[in-house]
Amino acid sequence: MQSEVKKVLSGDVRTVARLIRDIDDKVPEVREVLKALYPYTGKAYVIGVTGAPGVGKSTLVDQMVAHLRKEGKTVGVLAVDPTSPFSGGAILGDRIRMQRHSLDDGVFIRSLATRGHFGGLTQSTRSAIDVLDAMGKDYIIVETVGVGQDEVDVVRSAQTTIILVIPGMGDDIQAIKAGILEVGDIFVVNKADREGSDKTVHELKLMLDMSQEKYEEGRWKPPVLKMEAVFDRGVKELLEEIEKHRMYLAEKSGGTSFRKTRERIREELSEMVKNRIIEEVFEKLIQSGEFEKAVNSIRAGETDPYTACEDLVIPKLNLAEEHGRKR
Amino acid sequence: MQSEVKKVLSGDVRTVARLIRDIDDKVPEVREVLKALYPYTGKAYVIGVTGAPGVGKSTLVDQMVAHLRKEGKTVGVLAVDPTSPFSGGAILGDRIRMQRHSLDDGVFIRSLATRGHFGGLTQSTRSAIDVLDAMGKDYIIVETVGVGQDEVDVVRSAQTTIILVIPGMGDDIQAIKAGILEVGDIFVVNKADREGSDKTVHELKLMLDMSQEKYEEGRWKPPVLKMEAVFDRGVKELLEEIEKHRMYLAEKSGGTSFRKTRERIREELSEMVKNRIIEEVFEKLIQSGEFEKAVNSIRAGETDPYTACEDLVIPKLNLAEEHGRKR
Repeated sequence: MQSEVKKVLSGDVRTVARLIRDIDDKVPEVREVLKALYPYTGKAYVIGVTGAPGVGKSTLVDQMVAHLRKEGKTVGVLAVDPTSPFSGGAILGDRIRMQRHSLDDGVFIRSLATRGHFGGLTQSTRSAIDVLDAMGKDYIIVETVGVGQDEVDVVRSAQTTIILVIPGMGDDIQAIKAGILEVGDIFVVNKADREGSDKTVHELKLMLDMSQEKYEEGRWKPPVLKMEAVFDRGVKELLEEIEKHRMYLAEKSGGTSFRKTRERIREELSEMVKNRIIEEVFEKLIQSGEFEKAVNSIRAGETDPYTACEDLVIPKLNLAEEHGRKR
Repeated sequence: MQSEVKKVLSGDVRTVARLIRDIDDKVPEVREVLKALYPYTGKAYVIGVTGAPGVGKSTLVDQMVAHLRKEGKTVGVLAVDPTSPFSGGAILGDRIRMQRHSLDDGVFIRSLATRGHFGGLTQSTRSAIDVLDAMGKDYIIVETVGVGQDEVDVVRSAQTTIILVIPGMGDDIQAIKAGILEVGDIFVVNKADREGSDKTVHELKLMLDMSQEKYEEGRWKPPVLKMEAVFDRGVKELLEEIEKHRMYLAEKSGGTSFRKTRERIREELSEMVKNRIIEEVFEKLIQSGEFEKAVNSIRAGETDPYTACEDLVIPKLNLAEEHGRKR
């Protein structure tokens, strides 16, 4: 284990790749490595990129990587795919991603596609970020598709979140969930050569103005940028805005690394605890067959789901300890 | 408690209203009533109605209620609002809903707005459905806004799910998540007098055809209907399609009530168990202050989140019991 930690810290690509695969597969042993790596995390700057399918996320990320590499920065990219619980297919997984960086040692690109509810993906993403961070990457870009709760959770691990839209989504912008709007630090209208891009910029600004009312003075006001990522137009300006947002955050946190602020630790620990409980109790009830037995009893009319739930859960919990304390 | 059960079974509106409020507020005592009511559930037919804000869900539900009442059926309506974790505002809560049915004893309308992650809303919705079902309502309509995972989970409690869209959402339809598309049993293009309604119908059919490929012969093929709900045009046709889907389900399940099929029980019990574990372990860690103490230790660099998580969770779990069994 010690040697694995050393290998990650020295930037060994094969060890990192295996660790991330293990994180994705939820191999329990990976936790010990993550514990040992934690003191070395908190240095990388994490950027989230999200948006509906087809808005050009991969192209943008590819251009961002090129710019950051020119500045001599090292970059990790995590392409996160919150697969539908119904289709079960991986959207990003099989795509050949950003080939032009594949021979560059300063770039490390991996996909995460962990299934399952209850923040499993968010947890895996955070752990993968920790590994790339400890590996010494200056920037970590987390790319995720969509507009749902999963994606909001995933991008919340990022310091700066970029929401990508394209023109002609007029009605669509209204359909952007409040949650997504509020999670965006920078908005980008990509494919800005298309008709209606000014209208889209205008509508986004309007919506942001409306939602800003509830915030205090001095809060970050998300800019809305126009871009043609495929021609590298507007990417430099985006990186400048990211830098401004980075300064804003540094000032706000008084120098504390973003991921080590109280709020962030609270959020990360809360999700970790919830996932762990589910894993330790629910998944074991499935494995032992107790869950299926309860399903059969309900079907047979021998019990109801509310009683069955208690019969399954209560014996797994150490309630004695808690009662003991109360005395 | 026995008297409460009797009151629900006799259709007492005040008791039912209080129970649903208690479910929304997660009052633990409500579970005993739900246990006793369960044997009386499984008779109502549950219809889900979902779609983006502004597509006319409330208007449609109002018309459906009117039609069902004309046929002499009793109806319960649950307006479910998965509030954004960021804005925290209730979208449907404060609206005065469907006033014309407010004096009709055969109609019972309530909003649910439970906050929180981890399927809390889905659980509350299911419990509220159980109560309306035991109360004797023939139909229960669950109306929910949006296109995210929460909404998918909520409408999965329904036998027949209706997805409402409006014309001119061209690009938007592509943005409908695969999960939502696959959860829809009937698609309705509302405000069909608007330009582009035929195009929207066409696009929806195309998308459905594409996603149908993976399914076997004899599976339900979701129809796409045009509607002008505000003028009551197309509502009768929708109810006929619902009836067809009902027959299809009855045939498929061999007469077993939909909510008592193995698959459905498995899903409902699984969510119930997960929620209960979170409630019993995580929420108590918050209340006891242990969670905040751990956050402080991580901030102080005395521990890492992975170790802190174990220190919090493991003592709460009855792992001894499990080891005992293994011997």
